[in-house]
Amino acid sequence: MRIGLDMMGGDYAPGEAVKGVKLFFDTVTSDAHLVLIGDETALKPLLEEAQLDTSRYTVVHSSQVIGMNEHPTKALKEKQQSSIAIGFYLLQHKKIDAFISAGNTGAMMVGTFYSIKSIEGVQRPTIATMVPREAGGYGLLLDVGLNADCKPENLVQFGILGSLYAKHILGTENPKVGLLNIGEEEGKGNLLAQATYPLLKDEPRINFAGNVEGRDVFTDKADVIVCEGFTGNVVLKMAESFHEVAVKRGIKDDYIDRFDFEYYGGTPVLGVSEPVIIGHGISGQRAFMNMIVVAQKMLESKLLDKIKESFIAK
Amino acid sequence: MRIGLDMMGGDYAPGEAVKGVKLFFDTVTSDAHLVLIGDETALKPLLEEAQLDTSRYTVVHSSQVIGMNEHPTKALKEKQQSSIAIGFYLLQHKKIDAFISAGNTGAMMVGTFYSIKSIEGVQRPTIATMVPREAGGYGLLLDVGLNADCKPENLVQFGILGSLYAKHILGTENPKVGLLNIGEEEGKGNLLAQATYPLLKDEPRINFAGNVEGRDVFTDKADVIVCEGFTGNVVLKMAESFHEVAVKRGIKDDYIDRFDFEYYGGTPVLGVSEPVIIGHGISGQRAFMNMIVVAQKMLESKLLDKIKESFIAK
Repeated sequence: MRIGLDMMGGDYAPGEAVKGVKLFFDTVTSDAHLVLIGDETALKPLLEEAQLDTSRYTVVHSSQVIGMNEHPTKALKEKQQSSIAIGFYLLQHKKIDAFISAGNTGAMMVGTFYSIKSIEGVQRPTIATMVPREAGGYGLLLDVGLNADCKPENLVQFGILGSLYAKHILGTENPKVGLLNIGEEEGKGNLLAQATYPLLKDEPRINFAGNVEGRDVFTDKADVIVCEGFTGNVVLKMAESFHEVAVKRGIKDDYIDRFDFEYYGGTPVLGVSEPVIIGHGISGQRAFMNMIVVAQKMLESKLLDKIKESFIAK
Repeated sequence: MRIGLDMMGGDYAPGEAVKGVKLFFDTVTSDAHLVLIGDETALKPLLEEAQLDTSRYTVVHSSQVIGMNEHPTKALKEKQQSSIAIGFYLLQHKKIDAFISAGNTGAMMVGTFYSIKSIEGVQRPTIATMVPREAGGYGLLLDVGLNADCKPENLVQFGILGSLYAKHILGTENPKVGLLNIGEEEGKGNLLAQATYPLLKDEPRINFAGNVEGRDVFTDKADVIVCEGFTGNVVLKMAESFHEVAVKRGIKDDYIDRFDFEYYGGTPVLGVSEPVIIGHGISGQRAFMNMIVVAQKMLESKLLDKIKESFIAK
């Protein structure tokens, strides 16, 4: 199992990325081999200082970096020696089995769709986020920004993809799928939600729990919440801002602490045929470690095979 | 100035409604005459106990109540002696100048649209909510659930209506209008947001501040935030649930306290030709008082005339 990690992506790279690798080696039992993609000159002293077991990783040199604010398509095209471009090249050519980056999100998206195929039957790959629940554990919300406009069938597929992720990665048995809506009963909502409800109800691959409202996002009414990426992204960023405000105001609370994305790492791209995980720009060591853990779980559980079977089975 | 108040609406009516009236009389200088609509038998002992100045209010008897979970259209049709039906009758026939209720929200909406005309030129009346900002004061978010599907022109009108409300009721000079979106730059977002941006930019009646994201909802990046009612309702209910969780967990914080809807009372319906304010079902005395204050401000500032002028002027 070879997991590729972009060492140059994110605001605190490569320092925090190296620390995250160390944390992973020190705390997680794993036979994963890490492929660290980055500038050798910058990485070498950091890796030496960290005194990592050299048999557990390989460095692949990249001479360019895509900045956080560069235009994704343009940057990927022009910077073929960047860590992101090399990561996708390695993934596409089966030199690595998963790719993780906390770099330019747009470039990660574009890279995914240019170089990695969608799973057959998946109309729209999607990105999900973990949602801390007050009662404990995490729910999954998707889409959180990749698909700003959706059709009802897309939301149904998000429900299937999210259920498989919740089951195999989060360990939720028979996850309940909720439709984000603005009322509890069938028939409520905008045209999209109204049309999606009956499809979800009739979908045998999911355990549909009905509508969930904005106030239910942090409850365990549903384990997987589906919506189009516009509302999902607003929800995600609003939740992040609540956490930031609480930190800024010195509020100490176990539950609010769990909103820290460092706890769950990155956002998986679901529906593509190789594991890709996109990290937050301000990822620290803990986020890097958690992203490696998620990639490992995705490979160990053979999540992508299970997704393929589910979509072929239809 | 005669302000009509439904004394039977809300989970704690009529007790909290009477206390709210007392709080208003005791703390606010006003020559408003209150028209209290409710069951005389239930109200009489409460009003006597409260020792209110009898010259400042009139009771109008209603023999029926629309329950919080009744079907709005059916209930309004069948219960013409209910406090909500009587309130709209009085408003329609100019016996009161504003109507407030914390009762069945659906019945308040249906009552508004059946009995009160939209202001000429307003395509879609809307409901707004106040949003506490960390830096102080309140912003306005609209629509929060009345219009689940919108066209770009609707959002532009929400911007105009919200600007006038922010200016005349909240006292914000030259309010900045933001478009709720999932990216900062023009061209980002779903089809609706992409089409709305250039219209807002070209609209002379507002001070457009560009896109605002989920993380900006509680900042002062914009004073008025426009969106369709699906996303707006999810945002509103999510914010309410954050407040509830914080209260439940015993978190004490001045800013989080300001999320309590009791602080701002109810939700005005904007774009109709008479002031209608819809309260939260769990309104307490402070919420009732604040709704009366808002109704008074709407009348004193001649907000509706200003809205009419703005829409005629185009």
